[in-house]
Amino acid sequence: MKTLRVNMDRLQAKWESIPPEYESLGGRALIAKILLTEVAPRCEPLGPNNKLIFAPGLLGGTSLSSSGRLSIGGKSPLTGGVKEANCGGNAGSDLARLGVKALVVEGQPADGRLYLLHISGSAVELLPADDWRGLGTYATSARAQERWGAGCTVISIGQSGEFLMGAAGIVCTGSGEQNSRVAARGGLGALMGTKGLKAIVLDATDTEALPLADQKLFNASSRRFANELIESPKTGRKGAMHTYGTSAIVAAVNEMGAFPTRNFSQGSYEAAENLYGERLREITLERGGKVGTTCMTGCVIACCNTFVDVDGKPIVSTLQYETIGLLGSNLEIDTLDEIAHLNQLCNDFGLDSIEAGAALGIAAEAGLARFGDKDSFVSLLKNIAEGSVLGRVLGQGAAVTGRVLGVSRVPVAKGQAMPGYDPRALKGNGVTYATSPMGADHTAGNAFGARREVNPLGTEGQRELSLKLQLGAAMLDSTGLCLFARPPVYGDPQLMVDLINGRFGWGWSVADLEEFKKTVLKMELEFNEKAGLTSADARMPEYMTREPLPPHNTVFDVPEAELDAVFSAL
Amino acid sequence: MKTLRVNMDRLQAKWESIPPEYESLGGRALIAKILLTEVAPRCEPLGPNNKLIFAPGLLGGTSLSSSGRLSIGGKSPLTGGVKEANCGGNAGSDLARLGVKALVVEGQPADGRLYLLHISGSAVELLPADDWRGLGTYATSARAQERWGAGCTVISIGQSGEFLMGAAGIVCTGSGEQNSRVAARGGLGALMGTKGLKAIVLDATDTEALPLADQKLFNASSRRFANELIESPKTGRKGAMHTYGTSAIVAAVNEMGAFPTRNFSQGSYEAAENLYGERLREITLERGGKVGTTCMTGCVIACCNTFVDVDGKPIVSTLQYETIGLLGSNLEIDTLDEIAHLNQLCNDFGLDSIEAGAALGIAAEAGLARFGDKDSFVSLLKNIAEGSVLGRVLGQGAAVTGRVLGVSRVPVAKGQAMPGYDPRALKGNGVTYATSPMGADHTAGNAFGARREVNPLGTEGQRELSLKLQLGAAMLDSTGLCLFARPPVYGDPQLMVDLINGRFGWGWSVADLEEFKKTVLKMELEFNEKAGLTSADARMPEYMTREPLPPHNTVFDVPEAELDAVFSAL
Repeated sequence: MKTLRVNMDRLQAKWESIPPEYESLGGRALIAKILLTEVAPRCEPLGPNNKLIFAPGLLGGTSLSSSGRLSIGGKSPLTGGVKEANCGGNAGSDLARLGVKALVVEGQPADGRLYLLHISGSAVELLPADDWRGLGTYATSARAQERWGAGCTVISIGQSGEFLMGAAGIVCTGSGEQNSRVAARGGLGALMGTKGLKAIVLDATDTEALPLADQKLFNASSRRFANELIESPKTGRKGAMHTYGTSAIVAAVNEMGAFPTRNFSQGSYEAAENLYGERLREITLERGGKVGTTCMTGCVIACCNTFVDVDGKPIVSTLQYETIGLLGSNLEIDTLDEIAHLNQLCNDFGLDSIEAGAALGIAAEAGLARFGDKDSFVSLLKNIAEGSVLGRVLGQGAAVTGRVLGVSRVPVAKGQAMPGYDPRALKGNGVTYATSPMGADHTAGNAFGARREVNPLGTEGQRELSLKLQLGAAMLDSTGLCLFARPPVYGDPQLMVDLINGRFGWGWSVADLEEFKKTVLKMELEFNEKAGLTSADARMPEYMTREPLPPHNTVFDVPEAELDAVFSAL
Repeated sequence: MKTLRVNMDRLQAKWESIPPEYESLGGRALIAKILLTEVAPRCEPLGPNNKLIFAPGLLGGTSLSSSGRLSIGGKSPLTGGVKEANCGGNAGSDLARLGVKALVVEGQPADGRLYLLHISGSAVELLPADDWRGLGTYATSARAQERWGAGCTVISIGQSGEFLMGAAGIVCTGSGEQNSRVAARGGLGALMGTKGLKAIVLDATDTEALPLADQKLFNASSRRFANELIESPKTGRKGAMHTYGTSAIVAAVNEMGAFPTRNFSQGSYEAAENLYGERLREITLERGGKVGTTCMTGCVIACCNTFVDVDGKPIVSTLQYETIGLLGSNLEIDTLDEIAHLNQLCNDFGLDSIEAGAALGIAAEAGLARFGDKDSFVSLLKNIAEGSVLGRVLGQGAAVTGRVLGVSRVPVAKGQAMPGYDPRALKGNGVTYATSPMGADHTAGNAFGARREVNPLGTEGQRELSLKLQLGAAMLDSTGLCLFARPPVYGDPQLMVDLINGRFGWGWSVADLEEFKKTVLKMELEFNEKAGLTSADARMPEYMTREPLPPHNTVFDVPEAELDAVFSAL
């Protein structure tokens, strides 16, 4: 595998061999290393010195189930720190099979024009794409697949990325209709916008299987991994993950009082039942939509859905938990149909539905929309796509929206909006939001799954829990594994070691793997420190330490000293 | 003298004796100490835990010429750090004569209502002021003076402060028509807005002279100070300061290529001659306006003007250099009449003309106004006063405006807009902008006056120069002295020591004074560090290190190591 380096000043792409220090890294770990090595931590995120990096995980491109997530990163315009966001679909696997360990996009086109990058097994081309300007991601993907074939994977930005918005994500195609796989967080769509890249088209149809250092070990481990997933009560065919997907947890989060409601002012939503995973499945099947589908080829979990309207027409695939929280309860939108419609607009405009939902909640609090009134939020989202001044405010995300509109209830950490768990009722997530190098991010270490081991309302044990989860997430994000596929490798770290050794023959031990996980976080923390972030950025918003959250009426009260000690064991 | 503590939660005012650690401090120094002692450095600037502090300088309220500046401070919503902004007029002197060493406003009214604080020699009252909502500062001042007498000093916020805008300053009345003395910088108007304070009315008519520990020493020193000012070629009756006021330097700054033009993209302005101080004086006298007037009673320099329209009607008092730069050349507005009109709107809306001018320049670059077209800028300013979404963006100042509108040429340091000297052609000011605890601020240490000693285009000696100037400014800002009145005390530090000893009898030496100056900066730096600011915040914007400024085509190239070493000698 090689590095594909694309320079947008000179409009050149070139292949480079992998330097030794990048060799044993992938996905999130590789992004952190490239940022530390090649990017001035204090550069302006949207200036010419930042780089946009695409990296499959270490195990990406293999036949291993659930391993093809694509990590995308750079210095975040939203947090000012290191950023990796990853998504499902086949983009990660395609990139790996095309021999790309990292695609590094540098510079900015001097002419301000828009380009499209096409990568196939035989060539890499940069093509002018000015006439793609202003297209949503659905149209962009459709146009690209029309030209280069339905088998291509398209990675694109919508209008929000072109407008350099902090809520802009990067959208990859998945299989099936209306399928958007979004590397949503941290404003990476804006970074892609500054690079003048409207889309990247991956044609991996003519590629060969990646080499395996120890085919026997890899295949045996891979089979064991898949079997454990299939046999697990969580991820198997009867498990909640396959049956309901991420929306399985709506009921539980609502019952625990951590379901963001009305701009994070309540932790349970009276209409939550309408949004339950059970309801999502029921409606979808009733109308001829799909449940239990895969986002990436060969995934044995198959947690996805295609949500359809009453006529069976696909609206969005996949309707997920965080979106249901942020565009649903957070805005008091009480039907899945309405949420799916808002989700569709976000996907089309290339918006992170979490950041956008949080910004919309703040806008509603400021009186610019009405809680519960979908049309008022549709109108705001359309403002974003049109780039009106109001849209440009909202598109910058929750922090800027709060500041501009004079709203003090702004649920962010490091400038990034919180996902669907209010940290006052799930305090482990508060610790993760505050301390993760990524800002408020549930995938960086979600304490929800440990709610029976560590009291979510207590302050005890949260720091240790968050660290453990953050280390686990660093491993998953660096190998390309989906968070849903964690049980086998969390249960037996040797399995992950075997997979890595089978693929690369590095002779890793479990201790090496543990060290690897720590190294990822240490690199990210080092980048953030050099970028000027301090413990002042590792806090919950002040109002959450003061304003009790119904129904438990708890505040976020994990002591600051505990937050500061999270990484002391690294 | 006492501390007057006003709690806006309980709507109570109470007098407190001065704790020993506040005793020997005043103005800017006292603000830094109160912030360090009483305010959590990481509090949200617009939350209930920040405090708004008004403090006359140590020599305020005495008969000493030019000593009555009022320091206003708190944690800045714009920079996130310590903030002191000061203004002329009689507010500082009145507050001192009312026995107030510091007025500390705490909390926020739970009912969200608006109040007015009235302080006289006999009583302190908080009065409901909901029906003052939405008034500009001219109407607010006029209404207050109508009710409490023309001799009252009125300290108020305009619409921008009510909207919690980062560009909102605090406006005090001066003598004469249309006279606005603005503690402009750092968004302190927004802080006053969060406190629910529309205005503070000072009635010092019945107060007695402040006691003097050594009347003879004080009076002799005071006379010497005034005589030196009067006899100085700079500050005397024939000097440029009296003759032209701050606008005296337009020609020189333009000639040196540091005059901000077209959103800081050029350093000289082809129409600059129209804006010269000489022209300002000529027009003003021709039309029956005033020049050479005082902002505070008894000032022997008398640098102010009342700029009038063609019919002799006062437009604004005083039209100053920074405003001419930021609302003039920076917007390519080429007549003083037009600049004065924009200035009037800023004063009325309670806006910092520097921050507003920088934001307007960015808006013009984004195509929301036209450089050179005053009406297009009037329209934007009116948007601010109306609180439209566009107005709320612009009112947040240059950094937010740039971010929202996707403009990368944003002339700020620590989130605060640069005043009228482009740091690429006056590099000492760049060092001050970057390193001052206040953010980009010419009054924190302006290298313009030293342009003949240190080459403004070179990198040598800038760090030492900036530190010297920053220490001097800390002394002036803590004693209530005007920057224009610096020559006698810069020339002979013993004079300042005698004034302080005459007033208080502390027996200070020159070494004590030197230590005092250092202490001010050290306290401020400590607060900022605790607030989470790092050397990453002590930089010029990246584009200024890359984009050459015509006509010298220089970039800001003082090495980062030099910036980091500025305070190493403290």
